[in-house]
Amino acid sequence: MPMMASQMERSAGNYSAGPSRLPDAVRAMVAEDVLDLDGSGIGCLEHSHRGEVFDQVLSQTESLTRNVLNVPSDYSVLFLQGGATQQFGLIPMNFSETGLSAHTNTGVWTTKAMRAAEQFGPISIVFDGADDRFRSLPDPTNLQIPKEASYFHTCANNTVMGTQWKNLPSPPANVPHVCDMSSEIGSRVLDWNNLDMLYAGCQKNLGVAGTVLVIIKNDLLHRSKAPTPFNYQEHASAGSRLNTPPTFGIVVLRRMLEWIQEHGGVKNMALRAEKRAQLLYDAIESTQGYWQPHASHACRSVMNVTWHGPNPEAEFQFLHQANELGFSGLKGHRSVGGLRASVYNAADEVACQKLAELIQTSSRSCK
Amino acid sequence: MPMMASQMERSAGNYSAGPSRLPDAVRAMVAEDVLDLDGSGIGCLEHSHRGEVFDQVLSQTESLTRNVLNVPSDYSVLFLQGGATQQFGLIPMNFSETGLSAHTNTGVWTTKAMRAAEQFGPISIVFDGADDRFRSLPDPTNLQIPKEASYFHTCANNTVMGTQWKNLPSPPANVPHVCDMSSEIGSRVLDWNNLDMLYAGCQKNLGVAGTVLVIIKNDLLHRSKAPTPFNYQEHASAGSRLNTPPTFGIVVLRRMLEWIQEHGGVKNMALRAEKRAQLLYDAIESTQGYWQPHASHACRSVMNVTWHGPNPEAEFQFLHQANELGFSGLKGHRSVGGLRASVYNAADEVACQKLAELIQTSSRSCK
Repeated sequence: MPMMASQMERSAGNYSAGPSRLPDAVRAMVAEDVLDLDGSGIGCLEHSHRGEVFDQVLSQTESLTRNVLNVPSDYSVLFLQGGATQQFGLIPMNFSETGLSAHTNTGVWTTKAMRAAEQFGPISIVFDGADDRFRSLPDPTNLQIPKEASYFHTCANNTVMGTQWKNLPSPPANVPHVCDMSSEIGSRVLDWNNLDMLYAGCQKNLGVAGTVLVIIKNDLLHRSKAPTPFNYQEHASAGSRLNTPPTFGIVVLRRMLEWIQEHGGVKNMALRAEKRAQLLYDAIESTQGYWQPHASHACRSVMNVTWHGPNPEAEFQFLHQANELGFSGLKGHRSVGGLRASVYNAADEVACQKLAELIQTSSRSCK
Repeated sequence: MPMMASQMERSAGNYSAGPSRLPDAVRAMVAEDVLDLDGSGIGCLEHSHRGEVFDQVLSQTESLTRNVLNVPSDYSVLFLQGGATQQFGLIPMNFSETGLSAHTNTGVWTTKAMRAAEQFGPISIVFDGADDRFRSLPDPTNLQIPKEASYFHTCANNTVMGTQWKNLPSPPANVPHVCDMSSEIGSRVLDWNNLDMLYAGCQKNLGVAGTVLVIIKNDLLHRSKAPTPFNYQEHASAGSRLNTPPTFGIVVLRRMLEWIQEHGGVKNMALRAEKRAQLLYDAIESTQGYWQPHASHACRSVMNVTWHGPNPEAEFQFLHQANELGFSGLKGHRSVGGLRASVYNAADEVACQKLAELIQTSSRSCK
């Protein structure tokens, strides 16, 4: 029987799709923050969201967000709740001016965004990957996006499918581009010329579940038309304190952004992500077809590596071996099956090398 | 110059209205949970919300909620996000069937609930305390609640004003009673015969900001009519995992509920609350009018003790002295002014005695 994995190995071997691994240094600092925030003598869970100590946390987190993500000055930064899923409803509730919204259907989450949007008006599906089991993404320059759409919706990285736009499509002038960046934010340099709004649950690359980062161009923000308390402009005017914000998630976000800054910023996060993902894709390909990537080569995600085995038994056996070695979170999403390794900003390169070895050896031992 | 207060004193002297103090034992356990949840080797922020470890946390938290609050079996328990404020919008969006909703206006938060509700239909205000600066509550047996209302809304404890219903009013048969219990939940035995739905942000008596406990009678739940993802029934059918729930807040809620159970349950929480509040009210009254309670005697809250001084300077001086002694969070809400001590489940009785002494001595030194 193999040795039980140590806590350090269990922690490094956590490949959950989100909530997901934090950097060791961030986890340790957050545990300290719970006991005493910034030397105040009071833990971060217990500070008033309107007190001076949290005032500092909030303004630092906004500054860090702007610095790390290079946010232009005519965009507002909001810290909200309810996950990306709630944004699926809030976006059409606020912005479906003409009634019509345009969508790229690239996976489970964009489908949910479409279902939510069509409750508020008709939707135009400019690309639908369902027939292909969402394995590939189209040429972004070759989409017919209706000029009369209230907004155009994309998802930058598809967590479930393991696909990622290398370049996002651009809507026609005057159609705002709204992008779900839940599983990509903080791991790539952003092209703000092609983004009017992004939103991201923080539990993948930037911290914990329960906090959603929303960054929105003021031109669009001012058109918010949802009732209170669902109106983006209201939240922006109140500086994300229309009511009690998710204070803890903001504390963790601050730590994560500091950590990204100290580790070379998003440019370096992108390089690290490329390297980790390549280790895994190379390992999968080296098995000469025993393991097969789910996503088409051109749109493989560097955040979520998805692959299938020759049969369910082989996948089950892999998961069993992986668990004994201290790996977890490797089961594919129920809609895709197979296996998935989510390798966000905090993913450990050494653990990725070990996983790559397991991918290789598991194929040899079974042939 | 006085000695700086120690961390222990700062922590015990935290009287914030919410987020607010946690019991020392809970804070310490949560810091451990951040490093390693339930011996899994993975921290609580990093576990998948669909993994076995979090499955256990979620089912234990629901069981504890049902046990501690004595929830009848025909009610569903939901763990949501967005604060009580979001519920202000979700309630009419789901339940304003006839268009009309009935309200008791007992403070800042009920006013916000009314403003949100009237976006979905007309409102009937069966009591309005605004003229009285919300200092008193009416006889609950003497309200004319329209029989055709879709629901009747109350707030059990008014955090800002420091008033608390000793007995909640009852609506006519077939009018569901929906109650905001954000600042009372877990500190009193509930009368389920007079509750169809309660909701409570957890950052006062039950943990941290970002998690809202919703308990709803199934008869009412089945009438949810809001679009996805704003529909209560949808969240209930998905067992609070329609999307990623606020996993950390649920971990803290579990710890708080265990702590309440170990400390004599809500019956004992109520006794402790009475005793602490009495210490403060007695101290205020002993100053013979120098300090004056804000709330009328009959409806004084045992959760939020509010009082005024003879002038703003006296209040400012009190806050200054209090700060030097390690107390914080004592400034009254901007809409009421004066002073406020929020003494939720985790409030420290020794610190309350010290605060009571300060209330007395500060009046003597100024006369």
